[in-house]
Amino acid sequence: MKLHILGCYSATPRTISQTTSQILEMNNEMYLIDCGEGTQVQLRRHKIKFTKISHIFISHLHGDHFYGLVGLISTFSLLNRVNDLHIYGPKGIKEIILLQLKLSNSYTSYKLFFHELISPDSEIIFEDKKVTVTTIPLKHRVYTNGFLFEQKPGKRKLNLTACEKYGIEVCYFNKIKDGGDIKLENGHILSNDLLSYDPDPTPSYAFCSDTKYSEDIVPIIKNAYVLYHESTFLEKDIDKCEHTMHSTAKQAAKIAQLANVKHLILGHYSTRYGDINLFRDEAIEIFENTYLAEDGKTFKF
Amino acid sequence: MKLHILGCYSATPRTISQTTSQILEMNNEMYLIDCGEGTQVQLRRHKIKFTKISHIFISHLHGDHFYGLVGLISTFSLLNRVNDLHIYGPKGIKEIILLQLKLSNSYTSYKLFFHELISPDSEIIFEDKKVTVTTIPLKHRVYTNGFLFEQKPGKRKLNLTACEKYGIEVCYFNKIKDGGDIKLENGHILSNDLLSYDPDPTPSYAFCSDTKYSEDIVPIIKNAYVLYHESTFLEKDIDKCEHTMHSTAKQAAKIAQLANVKHLILGHYSTRYGDINLFRDEAIEIFENTYLAEDGKTFKF
Repeated sequence: MKLHILGCYSATPRTISQTTSQILEMNNEMYLIDCGEGTQVQLRRHKIKFTKISHIFISHLHGDHFYGLVGLISTFSLLNRVNDLHIYGPKGIKEIILLQLKLSNSYTSYKLFFHELISPDSEIIFEDKKVTVTTIPLKHRVYTNGFLFEQKPGKRKLNLTACEKYGIEVCYFNKIKDGGDIKLENGHILSNDLLSYDPDPTPSYAFCSDTKYSEDIVPIIKNAYVLYHESTFLEKDIDKCEHTMHSTAKQAAKIAQLANVKHLILGHYSTRYGDINLFRDEAIEIFENTYLAEDGKTFKF
Repeated sequence: MKLHILGCYSATPRTISQTTSQILEMNNEMYLIDCGEGTQVQLRRHKIKFTKISHIFISHLHGDHFYGLVGLISTFSLLNRVNDLHIYGPKGIKEIILLQLKLSNSYTSYKLFFHELISPDSEIIFEDKKVTVTTIPLKHRVYTNGFLFEQKPGKRKLNLTACEKYGIEVCYFNKIKDGGDIKLENGHILSNDLLSYDPDPTPSYAFCSDTKYSEDIVPIIKNAYVLYHESTFLEKDIDKCEHTMHSTAKQAAKIAQLANVKHLILGHYSTRYGDINLFRDEAIEIFENTYLAEDGKTFKF
């Protein structure tokens, strides 16, 4: 699992700070999460083969999370894309995009599917053989979802020593990997756990931005391998959180701790602070495995 | 008159080439012409005090000319702008912007006025004491206007020698500068041209992008001081012009010559050519005073 941070600052793009956008690589698929203005240039800058993106997830309709979407959609057409593109985001996103394509007389060279979200509850919005994506309802000034990406567990791992001991033939190995029990010729049944080990743990990634502090998300992101949680402010500015519906670094760390995640990545920084290390310094007192998102940085887990 | 080129390439923004946007400074006013994705970052990069912009002119609704507009409008709000902002552009632009502001629950902190254009004919769309802006109907794949910015002539200049000779008192000087004749005490009338000179010539700027070759624009831009004319292609690719409704550098030069402008600036280059000097080389054979737009370049006239 790789996470490419294309932009991780709040509010507005600047020369040295980009608004929210990231690429999650999972199982050789590339998922684009949020798409602030300038995302397509960031994708080029960091040499990401962005034509491979087939699924785009938009958390909410504030400009710093989606103003780059229509440009990316148009550029795909200019590149003569033929593969389907799926957009997941709040209701209204389809109207915004289609209105602009219509008025510019620029329909796409490929099929564009919108999956508009309206539910206040967590729901599975994407699933294929290997990955499930579930919404994480967030508390922000407009309807907002985070997204939990979970890789499905692989097959069970053969316990070759046990198979040999019980004289299991090779033709049964796939059945064992799939979790099946084995009936011996004498009628005795060997339960699967005698013949196999649990599969390798699978990575999961929870993206939570933008949101005020909310413990309601804890059950959904429980035990996630990586949590990206917004930290727009430092604790000394916590008074700004209620009105703007954002979080502090300390609050992000509390959520990471409560949810028992393995790693926490902070981002969506306000540019009022000169040094983003202040965010990590604050969070690490509560949650040790805290990392800082930075524009252009790639995390490998 | 200053012209800041923020972006001058066609199609899609890249790491080293920005789409169309420029700032015209005329009489201490800043006019923004077109606003491709990333324009607000270009304004910051080139240290332009963009909060001074009060009038934005959008030629047409192709993404490379306006996808940065909604972001700029939002950023003005984040900067707590209070001054009115006027947007001039094709019908539909208001719906696109207001829909996005509505769905993001982000109304502006200032008054936003839309002046939607529908006329196929040239018309004056802006006028104040010092400047007039007239549309230049262009021929492109969607409804498109260029814009002619004309500074109004200043007052006439006193011919002090003549005034002394005829014994004109100082209290009449303003009347003479305003073009009035003077009646002497003996009843004799001195016509204004005896007492004053023509005012300094005033600059004018004609922005023409995007368009296929069209001599219809020549009467409108006749004798303009500076013409910016798109040159998406070189003459060797003229076959691409008909379908895409763009021009070659040679065609831009022909228009400059026919319109008898003083200076020609080329831009809206396709990125297929490695070296933009090829555009100048082609145009200069027909029109000598040809210059190349470059992202970040400032022309002073």
